[in-house]
Amino acid sequence: MARVSIVGLGLIGGSIGLALRQWMTTPDGRKNSFELIGYDKDGEKANMAARMGVVATVSRDFGGAVRNADMVIICTPALAVREVLTALAPVVSSGAVVTDTTSTKQQVLQWADELLPNNIHFVGGHPMAGGTGGLGDARNNLFTGATYAICPSMRASETAIEQVIMLVRMVGASPLFIDPLEHDAAVAAVSHMPFTLAATLAKVTMDSDGWSEMGKLAATAYREMTRLAEGDPIMHRDILLSNKQAVVSWLDRYVALLFDMRELIKSADPNNPNSEAAKRIEQFFTAARDEREKWLNERSGGNRALESELQNINMGNVLSRGILGGFGRKPQGK
Amino acid sequence: MARVSIVGLGLIGGSIGLALRQWMTTPDGRKNSFELIGYDKDGEKANMAARMGVVATVSRDFGGAVRNADMVIICTPALAVREVLTALAPVVSSGAVVTDTTSTKQQVLQWADELLPNNIHFVGGHPMAGGTGGLGDARNNLFTGATYAICPSMRASETAIEQVIMLVRMVGASPLFIDPLEHDAAVAAVSHMPFTLAATLAKVTMDSDGWSEMGKLAATAYREMTRLAEGDPIMHRDILLSNKQAVVSWLDRYVALLFDMRELIKSADPNNPNSEAAKRIEQFFTAARDEREKWLNERSGGNRALESELQNINMGNVLSRGILGGFGRKPQGK
Repeated sequence: MARVSIVGLGLIGGSIGLALRQWMTTPDGRKNSFELIGYDKDGEKANMAARMGVVATVSRDFGGAVRNADMVIICTPALAVREVLTALAPVVSSGAVVTDTTSTKQQVLQWADELLPNNIHFVGGHPMAGGTGGLGDARNNLFTGATYAICPSMRASETAIEQVIMLVRMVGASPLFIDPLEHDAAVAAVSHMPFTLAATLAKVTMDSDGWSEMGKLAATAYREMTRLAEGDPIMHRDILLSNKQAVVSWLDRYVALLFDMRELIKSADPNNPNSEAAKRIEQFFTAARDEREKWLNERSGGNRALESELQNINMGNVLSRGILGGFGRKPQGK
Repeated sequence: MARVSIVGLGLIGGSIGLALRQWMTTPDGRKNSFELIGYDKDGEKANMAARMGVVATVSRDFGGAVRNADMVIICTPALAVREVLTALAPVVSSGAVVTDTTSTKQQVLQWADELLPNNIHFVGGHPMAGGTGGLGDARNNLFTGATYAICPSMRASETAIEQVIMLVRMVGASPLFIDPLEHDAAVAAVSHMPFTLAATLAKVTMDSDGWSEMGKLAATAYREMTRLAEGDPIMHRDILLSNKQAVVSWLDRYVALLFDMRELIKSADPNNPNSEAAKRIEQFFTAARDEREKWLNERSGGNRALESELQNINMGNVLSRGILGGFGRKPQGK
């Protein structure tokens, strides 16, 4: 029977487990032939995952969890991936597919290249959903409709890549092939810089002398703009370290534009909404609003297309479309 | 009969109207003796407000709307308040209470001082709720549980201030007396800077070469961190112009802290989560998360207290507590 192992049972690992468990029974009631096993170095979390039924089996030892696995899904914070790959190298079966879910891809692909044997197929992955919760917030539809970035290593076979695409489909997401360099620059802009900006806003205001009054006046907008500061500090630290160049470069571009705005605001006449500076401020906000609306419209169009595709997958002919073929193809009793 | 006029029928004016209309009938079924009249210079918006029943009467001419009013509530963007005060000065009745709802208070109080006759009681107001919608999003509970800042002018009588407090209670909010300078510095930090940061994030990413790929990877976090860019560009422009000193000063503090973070990220070793820089990054995110959680807890405590107070108000003895007395006290047929 094919074996899938999840290493790291937080929000992401837990949600992947819950999503995959739904496939253990096919829509026509037959059992799918794959085994789902989970591991977390935090014993408390492993116990909780077992109680939640995130995976079929929780292993208390790393070797037992990954030995004979056909696919290993690493769902730890970024810097811990290196440790997992090091521990994985001597025990993982020849031909196995290894994938991860961390937010930076160049660094992880480099580690996989250095640390894993040549006969292991590493395919980097990154689901663009998650939020800021822990295992307790895991749910089987966390990735429904989400984009899932895929960056295969040079040594990954076509079959290995297909199997990761199947995984992506099975958790309800839409695969997007992207160059690791491009990926890291993009997520620095739309994910890593945003959580850094949110935490900076929280810190600069809360550490100020006037905070006791400010806190009373702070409302929805402030709460929303600092929400990403809720995230796990270790996860944030690891992401920033493993994608530092791209993040620093985006922060520089951000500050340059913010400084332009500061200059415009400073130079504008408070009583004259028709001054050149006032017009440029208004244009800035008009463009930001309109471009964002365009993005939201395109995005919802894309989601609608994906939803109808997923509906077709759910329409019963899952096995005939080969979605599970990748796991099912393996010889039984391997 | 006492007359209340609302000038400017957008999200805020519309929601105040809908909230006040609920008080036209008392909990024991009697009619309250006040008249609610609305005006907007945009005829389309005035028609829509009439259809929505935001006020009892919509006036097509400004003079007709504000003449003989006991209270005028100005709900326009910040810079338009000056124009409204100028138009109001020659027609407003002696002894009337004038209040506003804009996001900056020093500027508005200065205009009121310059433009209104001495016998008019100006009390600046600012409900800390709203969001980014228009009249179509107006609702009677928009301000429920919100803090409502109050900055009386030097010439406002105690009775006038009491009447504005009644207004605040009637829309379901909690009054907070605050010095206009303190108010403006606080909202610069928790409201004006945040929407500037959000629009800057939207612009810097969407104008970049890589946006077509980035847009596919952008998810909930990005959407949330740019949400404030949805707001009306004129409102944003007016707020920044009328509170420019405080906003510029906060942007400078923000950039200074962001630059510290940039330096830390740049100096950290990507492979060493135990370096001094890595530790300081982790501490930064830990502090931001913990301080924000503390604020949220205090805030929800405050909201719970307010809710129970509002429940008591709704428990039937509204008139006996004098909440409507301010409007009802005026002689009929004035």
